[in-house]
Amino acid sequence: MFEKVTIVGVGLISGSLALALKEKGLAKKILGVSRTQKSLDKALALGIIDEGLELEEAVRQSDFIYVAIPVDATLPVMKKVMDLLQENQIVADAGSTKQALCQSLSGHPMRRRFVATHPMWGTEYSGPESAVHGAFEGRACVICEKEKSDPEALQKVESIYKALGMHLVYMDAANHDVHAAYVSHISHITSFALANTVLEKEKEENAIFELAGGGFESTVRLAKSNPSMWAPIFMQNRENVLEVLNEHISQLRKFKSCLEKENEPYLRELMEHANKISRILK
Amino acid sequence: MFEKVTIVGVGLISGSLALALKEKGLAKKILGVSRTQKSLDKALALGIIDEGLELEEAVRQSDFIYVAIPVDATLPVMKKVMDLLQENQIVADAGSTKQALCQSLSGHPMRRRFVATHPMWGTEYSGPESAVHGAFEGRACVICEKEKSDPEALQKVESIYKALGMHLVYMDAANHDVHAAYVSHISHITSFALANTVLEKEKEENAIFELAGGGFESTVRLAKSNPSMWAPIFMQNRENVLEVLNEHISQLRKFKSCLEKENEPYLRELMEHANKISRILK
Repeated sequence: MFEKVTIVGVGLISGSLALALKEKGLAKKILGVSRTQKSLDKALALGIIDEGLELEEAVRQSDFIYVAIPVDATLPVMKKVMDLLQENQIVADAGSTKQALCQSLSGHPMRRRFVATHPMWGTEYSGPESAVHGAFEGRACVICEKEKSDPEALQKVESIYKALGMHLVYMDAANHDVHAAYVSHISHITSFALANTVLEKEKEENAIFELAGGGFESTVRLAKSNPSMWAPIFMQNRENVLEVLNEHISQLRKFKSCLEKENEPYLRELMEHANKISRILK
Repeated sequence: MFEKVTIVGVGLISGSLALALKEKGLAKKILGVSRTQKSLDKALALGIIDEGLELEEAVRQSDFIYVAIPVDATLPVMKKVMDLLQENQIVADAGSTKQALCQSLSGHPMRRRFVATHPMWGTEYSGPESAVHGAFEGRACVICEKEKSDPEALQKVESIYKALGMHLVYMDAANHDVHAAYVSHISHITSFALANTVLEKEKEENAIFELAGGGFESTVRLAKSNPSMWAPIFMQNRENVLEVLNEHISQLRKFKSCLEKENEPYLRELMEHANKISRILK
């Protein structure tokens, strides 16, 4: 479908997308842009990109530019990409926050060529070596402000995500950021905090983790996530994240109060209520 | 190795153990004891047990009795089992707390025939239908107060867990309960509380969970756990759980403060510290 696609950032999301575009025959050539030569070399060695280039040159040559870098860096980089853009080109991003970016591009003369997207898939790993085959499958992809994109650009980006097996969900950027705080950002904060809780204890007691089993692993695995990616997400979405975090702390305080007061009936009630999450999870 | 083994409780742990004992040729016949006929019927239908019996009759016939029921029910049931016990029989439990049980049995004349164990494996499911083949493999099994068990009884129980692929860890009951609070109980509380946090939001906003991805699922999956099993664990281990919960809330407050004060450097520092959990997880 595309002759040349540029991925800006050669990491988990862009790398996995690049692999999928090649596999599905949606791109003939993948160009990679990165801040470091080391990442480009790795991405080349892994067969994720065909060529590493400077941003300007890569954008100039490409039909489609996909930006997947930390959300703070996205703002100036996307501005630069948009300033370089020609009528026939299409740009999309993969950021975990949407409001700041959509606002910053709202008056841009090439706004119509941009499609704001957030594929709801990821792992706790980062860098070119974290890219995997078969990513995205079965997950939701949010598209924001679709009315601000050219129908033809929107349709092309939609068809990429559909080809990857994603289902599309449309919402405005503000709603996206609220929802992302609830179903993604708070999970990361609780994992980071839980890791720090047990690491605190480890200072005095080395043997403790010999016992760590599957439950522990599943609740803390997100604590391995990259701070350079997640700190900017929390900062850009701080008002929503703070609201959810406050609610979460108050839910934890209910458990605390049950234990302090030895109120087992209310403890059971809280847990029975939490069981309702089953209908949301597969 | 055993002619007849009784499992008291026919659920996740005892059921998975029974399947493994049969597969490894460690038990010729499995007897099941349960509060409900329905569970016994299911366990029979699933091939987990060969016969359902009343506790007294099952214990009378068995070489080895394995008790895996909620930790509050364990106390009176284990007392009953111990009162029925003959010299040649062996008893073990699988409880997630060890101090209350070990204390309650400390003066019992048959204490030597009891081995206090906690296989550190589980899933969020319960009941006979949750029993799986190949459980326990690669995980730790804690054995408490091993000096209070007859060497021959201890050795037999150890050899069962080793045959299941577990590695044995020895500690006193008080230490076990501290460690379990850190590597298991707190993970369950954070999951229950996180589920309640997002369910709170769902009241006003139905579409939110269309977006829930892998990260969310992994941090809340334990919220599906059975309150009848977990409420007694939290109550029996409440002092340790409260200590960890207080530490966890104070770790969450650090994240909150970073967001409120827009202190991104400290936010990154907290996350980089949490990343150290990698060396503990596989």
